[in-house]
Amino acid sequence: MADARSKGAQAVLMATAAETEAAFYEALQRGDVDSLMRLWSDDEEVACVHPNGPRLVGQGAIRAAFSAVLAAGGVDIVPVHVRCVESPGCSVHHVLEKVQATTARGLQTAYVLATNVYLLTPQGWLMVAHHASPGQSDEMQEMIEAGTVLH
Amino acid sequence: MADARSKGAQAVLMATAAETEAAFYEALQRGDVDSLMRLWSDDEEVACVHPNGPRLVGQGAIRAAFSAVLAAGGVDIVPVHVRCVESPGCSVHHVLEKVQATTARGLQTAYVLATNVYLLTPQGWLMVAHHASPGQSDEMQEMIEAGTVLH
Repeated sequence: MADARSKGAQAVLMATAAETEAAFYEALQRGDVDSLMRLWSDDEEVACVHPNGPRLVGQGAIRAAFSAVLAAGGVDIVPVHVRCVESPGCSVHHVLEKVQATTARGLQTAYVLATNVYLLTPQGWLMVAHHASPGQSDEMQEMIEAGTVLH
Repeated sequence: MADARSKGAQAVLMATAAETEAAFYEALQRGDVDSLMRLWSDDEEVACVHPNGPRLVGQGAIRAAFSAVLAAGGVDIVPVHVRCVESPGCSVHHVLEKVQATTARGLQTAYVLATNVYLLTPQGWLMVAHHASPGQSDEMQEMIEAGTVLH
């Protein structure tokens, strides 16, 4: 499935976790499973949880699930709010994902809460975890103090 | 709420992420919010998602939510299956949590998929993320190859 462009992308080292994350969401938007999977570490224990899904462990299972999600093409998904915990070799991103799809009932919008973890490897910053859960129906789903809900 | 024992525990440096994780589940079992919160980094962007819940950012919001969960006492929760991605300063644990509670219908068991992220800090290994989602009704919820479900 790899074309010349995506083969070429294999040589690209991701210099920051933010760059890897941007490429991850762009690959989802394009429905480009090969590019998406190149952003994952080859550690055998990398893991992915899609909303309401099981745990997927290892590149094989993760690729199969993303291939199913993207079988009909790219997903209209954008990271709308990101929180980060940074350390020298690890970056933890908490992302509110806005997902839109046109259905029989018109344009539908859903929000997903995702935790993305990136490690600095000899191959640059690579993803080792993507854990996504269904969010509430609007963007007001982050609490920074008890009783205070911010969007 | 802190007693002599839990005050004393403030001085304990967690030497490994596994040790921090064991203390996390023990604190949940005891319903000990103070001990539990000492396992979290003081980074402002630490975040926690409980099953079907919003994102909680920062120690204040995280403490409030755990206090609510533990208001009636400890939770019968055990990590039954753990996958780890390790790097020098970061440890990512994928945990299948088994939660049991006695209800009007008898002893109920639920499974939760959690991603726990620990960073090595000057205060030892501390938690920076806990993202939990409802699991399926049994332990067969991990796929390591397309089409292969293992427990």
